[in-house]
This record gives sequence, structure tokens and C-alpha cells, in this order.
Amino acid sequence: MIQFQCDYNEGAHPLIMENLLKTNMEQTEGYGLDPYCEQAREAIRNACKAPDADVHFLVGGTQANATVINSILRPYQGVVCADNGHINVHETGAIEHGGHKCLAHPSKDGKINAEQLDNFLAEHFTSPEAEHMVQPGMVYISFPTECGTLYTHDELAAISKVCKGYDIPLFVDGARLGYGIIASKGDVTLESLTLLADVFYIGGTKVGALFGEAIVITNAKLKKDFRYNIKQNGGMLAKGRLLGIQFLTLFTDNLYFRIAEHAICEAMRIKSAFLEAGIEMFVDSPSNQQFPILTQSQIATLAKDFLFESWGKVDADREVIRFCTSWATKPENTDTLIEAIKRL
Amino acid sequence: MIQFQCDYNEGAHPLIMENLLKTNMEQTEGYGLDPYCEQAREAIRNACKAPDADVHFLVGGTQANATVINSILRPYQGVVCADNGHINVHETGAIEHGGHKCLAHPSKDGKINAEQLDNFLAEHFTSPEAEHMVQPGMVYISFPTECGTLYTHDELAAISKVCKGYDIPLFVDGARLGYGIIASKGDVTLESLTLLADVFYIGGTKVGALFGEAIVITNAKLKKDFRYNIKQNGGMLAKGRLLGIQFLTLFTDNLYFRIAEHAICEAMRIKSAFLEAGIEMFVDSPSNQQFPILTQSQIATLAKDFLFESWGKVDADREVIRFCTSWATKPENTDTLIEAIKRL
Amino acid sequence: MIQFQCDYNEGAHPLIMENLLKTNMEQTEGYGLDPYCEQAREAIRNACKAPDADVHFLVGGTQANATVINSILRPYQGVVCADNGHINVHETGAIEHGGHKCLAHPSKDGKINAEQLDNFLAEHFTSPEAEHMVQPGMVYISFPTECGTLYTHDELAAISKVCKGYDIPLFVDGARLGYGIIASKGDVTLESLTLLADVFYIGGTKVGALFGEAIVITNAKLKKDFRYNIKQNGGMLAKGRLLGIQFLTLFTDNLYFRIAEHAICEAMRIKSAFLEAGIEMFVDSPSNQQFPILTQSQIATLAKDFLFESWGKVDADREVIRFCTSWATKPENTDTLIEAIKRL
Amino acid sequence: MIQFQCDYNEGAHPLIMENLLKTNMEQTEGYGLDPYCEQAREAIRNACKAPDADVHFLVGGTQANATVINSILRPYQGVVCADNGHINVHETGAIEHGGHKCLAHPSKDGKINAEQLDNFLAEHFTSPEAEHMVQPGMVYISFPTECGTLYTHDELAAISKVCKGYDIPLFVDGARLGYGIIASKGDVTLESLTLLADVFYIGGTKVGALFGEAIVITNAKLKKDFRYNIKQNGGMLAKGRLLGIQFLTLFTDNLYFRIAEHAICEAMRIKSAFLEAGIEMFVDSPSNQQFPILTQSQIATLAKDFLFESWGKVDADREVIRFCTSWATKPENTDTLIEAIKRL
Repeated sequence: MIQFQCDYNEGAHPLIMENLLKTNMEQTEGYGLDPYCEQAREAIRNACKAPDADVHFLVGGTQANATVINSILRPYQGVVCADNGHINVHETGAIEHGGHKCLAHPSKDGKINAEQLDNFLAEHFTSPEAEHMVQPGMVYISFPTECGTLYTHDELAAISKVCKGYDIPLFVDGARLGYGIIASKGDVTLESLTLLADVFYIGGTKVGALFGEAIVITNAKLKKDFRYNIKQNGGMLAKGRLLGIQFLTLFTDNLYFRIAEHAICEAMRIKSAFLEAGIEMFVDSPSNQQFPILTQSQIATLAKDFLFESWGKVDADREVIRFCTSWATKPENTDTLIEAIKRL
Repeated sequence: MIQFQCDYNEGAHPLIMENLLKTNMEQTEGYGLDPYCEQAREAIRNACKAPDADVHFLVGGTQANATVINSILRPYQGVVCADNGHINVHETGAIEHGGHKCLAHPSKDGKINAEQLDNFLAEHFTSPEAEHMVQPGMVYISFPTECGTLYTHDELAAISKVCKGYDIPLFVDGARLGYGIIASKGDVTLESLTLLADVFYIGGTKVGALFGEAIVITNAKLKKDFRYNIKQNGGMLAKGRLLGIQFLTLFTDNLYFRIAEHAICEAMRIKSAFLEAGIEMFVDSPSNQQFPILTQSQIATLAKDFLFESWGKVDADREVIRFCTSWATKPENTDTLIEAIKRL
Repeated sequence: MIQFQCDYNEGAHPLIMENLLKTNMEQTEGYGLDPYCEQAREAIRNACKAPDADVHFLVGGTQANATVINSILRPYQGVVCADNGHINVHETGAIEHGGHKCLAHPSKDGKINAEQLDNFLAEHFTSPEAEHMVQPGMVYISFPTECGTLYTHDELAAISKVCKGYDIPLFVDGARLGYGIIASKGDVTLESLTLLADVFYIGGTKVGALFGEAIVITNAKLKKDFRYNIKQNGGMLAKGRLLGIQFLTLFTDNLYFRIAEHAICEAMRIKSAFLEAGIEMFVDSPSNQQFPILTQSQIATLAKDFLFESWGKVDADREVIRFCTSWATKPENTDTLIEAIKRL
Repeated sequence: MIQFQCDYNEGAHPLIMENLLKTNMEQTEGYGLDPYCEQAREAIRNACKAPDADVHFLVGGTQANATVINSILRPYQGVVCADNGHINVHETGAIEHGGHKCLAHPSKDGKINAEQLDNFLAEHFTSPEAEHMVQPGMVYISFPTECGTLYTHDELAAISKVCKGYDIPLFVDGARLGYGIIASKGDVTLESLTLLADVFYIGGTKVGALFGEAIVITNAKLKKDFRYNIKQNGGMLAKGRLLGIQFLTLFTDNLYFRIAEHAICEAMRIKSAFLEAGIEMFVDSPSNQQFPILTQSQIATLAKDFLFESWGKVDADREVIRFCTSWATKPENTDTLIEAIKRL
């Protein structure tokens, strides 16, 4: 079976494995205080052009989301998000476990917009009953979204402006950030994202690493005592240097974005194949996740040779299906899939 | 500098690195549902002689402790532990973050005893004011303890009996389990521990793995929905097979205990050196952590060439110091340390 | 200004005040262990025809909801409710504060239905990704709802049946239970509700008491250690007898329902007045809350003499307005309001 | 049976009942926004000579403690307290339920001292491992303590100074504040306490009210959004004016302190009787709780006519017993007790 069901089927980029092996028997301090972590932090600060940013390494996305959100919100505050945002649907209530409500907003394509946000915040803060409701305390968006779509730079800037107007931090979940930046073709860059968000993370797990997410905090008010939060949320890796070595590798010679480009290229080939086969896409995704709407018969045919994920029913016969590529997708596997699509 | 400050200075055992490398580009399902995890679970069940046990892999100790404890307790219940237990002092309140009080009991050597426990439980459950107090809902002990000491089989059996009498689960933190089992010289075995505890974990991070703790649940009442808890607590590793491969390696050909034996051997050499130098030990530890009581001048001398950790002041001049060995400790480094001790 | 903005503008029914005064200097035990609480419990068990029910008295509704929900759910479980349910919108995240997600379902009239519920539960428990999502652990409905509407007996029975099928408790928020029972005209009785719900509460605050909600637990599995939960959630009133005396008074000679009837009678007069004036109602409420849709000019006119609450905009000019009656509503105030409505 | 087991056996001071009755059928806004609450706030601000203080009314002590502590601490912070402090032993883990550890310090008489506190804070904030431990985020003391003892003004000032040095708020639990202030005989006044604490509460439940605690916040940084916290913690009483009326009555014509004086007077009579009978006291309490150490035979004798509480065993035969007086203690009951003590 060829696997397209997610972007974390394989291990790590060979260069990462090489560096892990090379340094395996070195002795270093634990908990991210080693020289590799320090160099990786510096490399990321350089890539973001944010010399004052704080950079922290965590193992996974749910952990990163919970740690950041718990560190920002007061107990009576919630996090504004799209109703299909990862924190709202696929983290088994990790955010509520920390005491906070996801203030979910309807979204078809995974995005929320500045106007919707502005209206909601205005309504809350002018309501005579505000104190009976959860106070919006931050905004969470994903780039790219869970549907593979992207915010444009202008959309991000508009959301960022609304947030600043209410003094509410903007947090960007970048579990697939590399794919998003490449897919945006220069519209959104790591540098511009750094300027617009108060805190975001650079996903490693899905973009070349064995595991790891690099949290970048630019808003000075959010930096204090962050490591206490990491430890409390179970995210302080003993052998922290494993994260340092991986991110140092990814942010050396632009590896992170170079391998992301491969995934986008493969995804575009798949997308084209579906479109040429006359198959409708659920959303117009420019990134590494593609969502064709397939009939049960088409699904059954493809399921003989490929693993993929169902994204929900459209009607009695049709279903949204997700195909993911990654840095590790073999072009010959994509070829095989494209052939299969043509035969549908 | 030669590092003895903890048992997670190096990476992983070379065989683990080899297996990670060998399987790196294979495609597997995520979240611990891959064949390697399944084989590792089976290997652990075999080693424990517990064919019905549930085995789950988590990344780190704080995460494992919080997940297990959150999964067992009702909101108004707390976890009984030694006052110097890891959950009570060194996890930044991860247990309280989940809503639970650590019901800490005085302990000099890291152990609690059955009588102390029985009295406490009897007192609570017969108190007319019980409902105004946190109800003891489980017991947490470490094997070995944070001070390197060990419960004997009989001590464990007595604690286990008290727990069963009150229908309260016994949870054993085995972050250094391999070292403890070896150090106990046959008194406590993986098999006997499995029979006495309701749930425990087999520490990988400190015993040969890059990271990872294998939770073993034998009490059927504690098994239900455990994976929901893992996910909610941020502990479900996307590329779960990394854990499977590591534990499969450790539990093949008894590697886990073979490498633990090396650490104990090196620790005993260090212990003898201190004792021969007439230096008092804080506790009589048979395991991989040794706690000499040193003067400021002795500390200053050793600090020139070695990293170690302070464990607290004894008086104006003297301090308890921790030296850790591990599977990775180089005998020549131990030799150098022993020479230095002799010169003190 | 005449106040119709809520059903807790006045103090308590005169008989309650009389009994509080009469017993004021008596000495009793605290925390609900006094004879008045015991008698009140017995009176409620009799009224419910549930001799084995556990009855607990709490001060307010948010506290009662949080305590019941925290006592039932495991950490990874959430509570299914209508999106306009009180716990989801007007309790400042008290449920999330306890670690639980409100699994909110779209509802126009405050009700959810058995089919919607069944589909949702079936979908969760058959999903291959279930463990990545919050598990539905109980169902919360309000009787009457926040919109004044009522479930019929058959609707309740259908929901109850779905819950039992999934072994998920059904919790009924009865903050206005007296008004609901009376408004249902024999369709839903205290007795039938007791049989259909696993736990519910009888609202006192809005139906004649100074404060107080009587939680009735019929499902034996939910009874254990409930008083620990009350205490932990800050709901154990020191002078608990104040609650006992109030509920004993309300459940003597059927006072609770007799005074509820008055509120319904006054509400129906107001409803008729609006309908006769050709004013549309947002929902067809048979209970003590009425929701006319008024123009800004109508609102301005009524606001000169009456206090009422806005329930949200319908369009640029029109707004849903809430008028509440209660056991304490003076008929002459209703008369004055009806005259004003006629003049609109 | 004559009851001395606690200070909340009776209802409220007759003047409070009178005022509740007089205003019973008035219509007011809910949630503490009514004119009585406003007047009561003003009266308390005047009594404290703190025109800028925020004053909030809650129903009970556990609720007040949890709400204040949850409003102040960040998730990774804990509250420093005496090990016998109410929050640490008698609130069923309400503080941990909010996610926070009680950082308990050994205390025989219920007090902690400035030196102990200073050492602890210094140790934490200079520890290289600080981020692995719960950060002390505030200090909680009780005035009077749970043992009836009092801090002197100088002791309070010293603690307050340490807190300010670390920018850590000082919170004073004043469940029995009236009794403490009177017992201190001018050493600690409401005014001086207001200057030394960042936030405290004035207990009503035990000093004349049916229920109610008035939280006084003087530190401007702690004021923001406090009402959201009240609501989230289930403490926003619908008919809030009940609290306003009670505290307005208590703070009119100095009623609060006048009735507290009666309790102290009765307590001193009891204390003298024990001392004259040659009975040792567990602590030298100047306030309304007295703790004689009695033999089992003495206990059995007194238990025939009086209710009192056990405070724990001293040895095989002897036990610490608590006798409480209150504003409502009848002098003739005290006389009867004194006679009984004489006969011991």
C-alpha cells in the first residue's frame, strides 16, 4: 500500500538522521540548555529576522498549542478559532483541559476573517452581559489551515490589526508552516509572519523532522516564565538537544523550505490529475493537502492500492477525501497515484 | 568536562540508532498504531509475563505521570506520595494542573511505608470531616526512588496490600526502572512488580532510548479510554513508531537490563571510591545515583573536571551531591572520577 | 420602573421569610446535615416519588451545573448541549474551567432532539479518529429551555432512551423547573421527569426562594462521594439549613407549584397582549419568559416605564426582547404593561 | 444540647433579618448591581479608609478563596500558606481544582513568619532548577488563623514587606476577621490590614450574616475583570442584593465589630474557666476559638451536654478540643459550660 493519508508516515530527512547519529554519544546538558539548541534558536531568529524573539522547542503540536494557549490566557478567557480548527476538533479537548473555551467561528475553508473577528470582539466588549460570557483573550489561526488553504498577507495583516486594536495576541499554528510559506509563493514569508503574529510555531514533525515544533515568541509580554509552562505541560524533553540538532539541520542551508517545496510540487501534480479527471475539489488548496470529492466507487477503486483519509460525507454517495504529500513523498508513488486517478 | 550530573546526557544506545536509521524511510501509520509499536507491546507483555496488560508509549516522564494520574483520579481525589517524590517537587505542578493534590508524606530516603499509608487512609476514611478534605485516590511511588533507594519486594507487597484493601490503585514511576530491577539483585523483578502494581512505567529516556516511557496497565479498571487521555495530555506522538522501534530494540535480547547492569557496575565503583575515601553518603543507594556529602572545598576540587548536581545543603560547609551513571557511562570517565576522589 | 427583565428581582416568598425568621436563633449543625435539610430532602423525594434519590442543596445554578458536570465526566469527556444552552453561553466558561468541552449543537428554540443526538453519538463512537476528539460523556438539557420552550414528554423520553443506549447520563437543568412543569399542563410531571433523567435540579432561586437549587440524583452510579464535589466546587453552604428551610417550605402544601402557576398566568396575559397587538413572537413559549420581536421605536416606548432584556437583533430595526414573570409579579404591574402594549 | 462546635450554628443578627424582610418585595437588579450592594461597598470602603478599593460580595469562604487565588496566579504558580491553612486541608482541594499547588509551610500555631517566607522565596528564585518547580505566586494567611491565633501588626508588616520585595500579592483570609480585629485590641485594625494586604476578605458568615464574604482588593493590578472570575467560579449570586443588605447592615453603626466583641468576651470567659481548672490549652488563643487539651474522660463528661469538635489526638488519652463562640452565643450557655468545666 502506498500511503498518502498524512504527512508523518516516514521518519526524518536523512541529513537529520546523519546529525543525530554523529552526535549521539556526545554529553550535553538536558532540557534544551545545550549548545545545539542555542545554535538552532539563533538560526531560527536569523531566518525570521527577529533577533529578540524567544524560541522554544516542543515535541508535538497538541502540546505546543496547549502550552502556548495556557501561557497566555487568564482563566475566564477563551481562544477565538475557526470551528474546524485543530484545537477545536482534533486535540481531545486539550485546550478545555487547561480550563479554556474554544470560541469557535463558522468556517467552510478553515479560515476566519478580520471582519467576523472584529464584530465578535466588538459585540463581547460592549455587551452589558460580558462578564457572564467567556472573554475572548487571544486568536488562533492555522497557516496553512486544516483544509490546506492559505491566508493571504493582506488577510493576515487585517486579522493582526484587529487583534492589536483589542490588545489580544494572535497565535499562528504552523504545524505545516513550511508547506504554507512555499505554497504562498512569496505572499507570506517567514519574515512577514513573524511581524504579524505575536507567537507562532514552525512545524518540524510534518516537515522533515522525527518530531518537534519550534515556538517563536515575538511579543515581549508573552515571554516571561515560558519554560515553567513547558515543564508543567509535560513538554520539556530531557534530551532536549534532539530538538536542537533537528532544527539546526532544518535551518541550515534553507533545508526546511527546500524540502517543503518538494511536497508542494507533488501535491500540485496530484491536484492537476484530479482536476483533469473532472473531479471536483472540496476547497482550492495550494498546499500539501488535497481534498477531492469522490464517489464511493472511486474511493473503493483507489483504496485497493492507496491509504488516504476520509474528511466527511458530502451526500449519500460522495465523500471528501484527503491526500497528503510531504518532504518524503516519492515521485514514483505520485506517478502511480496519478495513473490511478486517470483510470477512475 | 566529564558529565555525571544526570542519566540523560547522551543520545541512544547504538542499536536503537541503527534500527531507527534502517526503518527511517518506511511508511507506517501514526499515533502508535504501527507494527513496530505492536511488536514492542508484545515484547513488553512477554517480559512482564502479563499477556493481558495494556502497554502505551509516551515521550517523557512528567507526561507519563500526569496522564496516568489524570486518568485514574476523580476531581476531588489526590495522589499519595513521598514529599520528595518527583510529582511533588520537580514537575512544576503538572499534577495540580490536572486538578489534583499531591498528598505528600514525610520521607527522608524517598520511600513511604505501608504502615504510614494504612494509618493515613484509615484516618481519612473514618473522619467525620472526610468530605472537606481531598480524598486519597491512588498511591504513587518511585522505583528506584529519587534518592536512588529501593523498596524491597516485601515492602512493595505490603504497600500493594494496603492499596488493595482500600481499592486504591498503586502506580509505580519507573523512570529508572531498569537500574532499580538490576540493583535489587533478584528481589524485585519486572514480573513481580507487574503483579504488585496496578500501573507502572518502564523508563526508556534514562535507560538507553532517545526518549520514551512504556506505561503498563494491568488493572483492567484502568484500561478504558486510556488513549483519549494520552491525546488530551499532549502525549500522542505523531510518528509513534519511533517509540515502538526503541522499545522493541530494548526488549529484544534483554538489551534493556544488560545496559542497565553496566550503569549499576559503574555506580558501585564510584560509591566504593567515596566510601574508601571516608566520605559519608546521604543514603545507602544501590542504584545508579550516588549521593556523597561533600565539603565546599571538595566540591570545588571536583567541579574543575566534572559536572554534577547539588542536592541541597547539610550544614554551613557540607552539601549533598548527586553523581549519576547510565548505560552510556564510559569506564574511563569513571576511572578519572575515582582518581579524583582518591585525591580529595 | 417596573421590572420584567428577569425572574429574580424580588426576595423570597413571604412564607419562606417567615420560616427563616422563626428559626433564626436555633442552633443546628452546618453543611446541610441539619434536620431541616433532612426533612426537605424527604419532602422532595416524596414529591418526585423517588424514595431512593439523593437530594443535595446548592446555592446557585452555575454552581449546580458545574458541580454535577464535574462529578460525572472523565477528563476527556464533554457535555452535549444546545448551542444556546446556559452552560455554553452564560456561565463564563465554568464548565471549561472544570476541564470539559461543551459539545454544542445548533438549536433555534433551545432544544436538541433525539435524532440529532443519536447521530452525533453514533458518529463519535464509530469514528476511527474518536480518540482525537472529545468523547461525549453526558447530555445537558434545560427544562424549560433558555428560550422558554418545553420538551414534550415524548421528546424527553426519546432523548432519555438514546442516552441509556449509550450509557450516558441525562442531566436536566431545572433552574425554572416549576414554571416548566406547570406550563406543560400535565404532559411532563416532576414524577415523569425523575424517571427520565439521571440527575436534575429543582430551581429555587427563580421560583420563590432567596436562593437555592435542589439537585436530585436517581442514577445510583452518580451518587458516590457527591458531597466531596460540592465542597470542592465551593458549593457547601456553612449554614446549610437556610437551604433546607427554604425547600421544606416550598415543598410543603405544594407551594412551589402553586406560586409557579401565578407566574405562568401572568406570562400568558402578556403573551396574549403581544399577539393581539399583532406583534410576532421569536418562539412560541408557554412558560414564564416571553420573547416578542419589537421595533426600535416600540422598544424605546416601553423602555420609559419598564425594564426588560435584549435577546439579540433580528434585523436593522427589530430586536428580540425578553419579558419575564415570576411568582412575585404583581398583577397590577402586568396590567400596566398590557396597557402599554395596546398603545404600541 | 448546647452547641459550641462552630461559629455558624445560628442564623443572622436580628437587624439583618429585619432589613431582609423590609426590602423583600422590592425589585432590584441582579448580580450585585443593585443600590444596596453599592451602598455596602461604600460603607466598607469607608470603614477601611480605602476609597479606591474594589469590593465584591461572595457567598462563602471556599468560594472566596478559590476565586481570589484563581484570579491572581498564572498556571505554573502556587500559593504559599501554612500547612494547617484552610485552603491546604479543609477545602477538598478547591485550590488544586483550579490548577494550583498549595506550597505549604510547617506551622504549629497556624502562622507563618516573614523569615521563613523570605528564605523560601529566595531559594526558589535563585535555584538553577526553578522552572522545574511550582513558582510561588502569592501568599495566603488567615487572620485570625485556623487555631485562633493572631499575627501582630509587626508580623504582618514584615510579611507584607517580603511580599512586596518579590512583587507577590499578600492575601488575607478573614473568615473570622471581626473576631481577629477585636481580639488584637488595637494592634491590627481594619485600616492597617487594608494597607498591608493586597486583597483580603471580611467574613460575614461567621460574624452575624446568614452568609457572605466581602472581598476587598486594594492592589490595582488585581482588580481587572474580577467579576468574570466570580461568575466562572460559581460565586455570582443572582439576588446579589441579599449580600448588599447584609453587609450594609453590618457596616452601619459599627455593628460588625460590636457583635464580634461579644464573641470574644464569651470566649475569654471560657478560656479562663479552662485555665482556672488547670487545663492546658493547645495554643494561647485570644480569639473566639479555644483549644483545651482534654482527657477522654473529660471529653465524655462534657459531651453529655455540649457539642464541640475534635482537633486531633495529642497522645493515647488526650485530645485537642475546639470550643467556638460567636456573635450569637447566649451568655447563659457560656455560664452552663463554665459550670461544667469547674466540675471536671
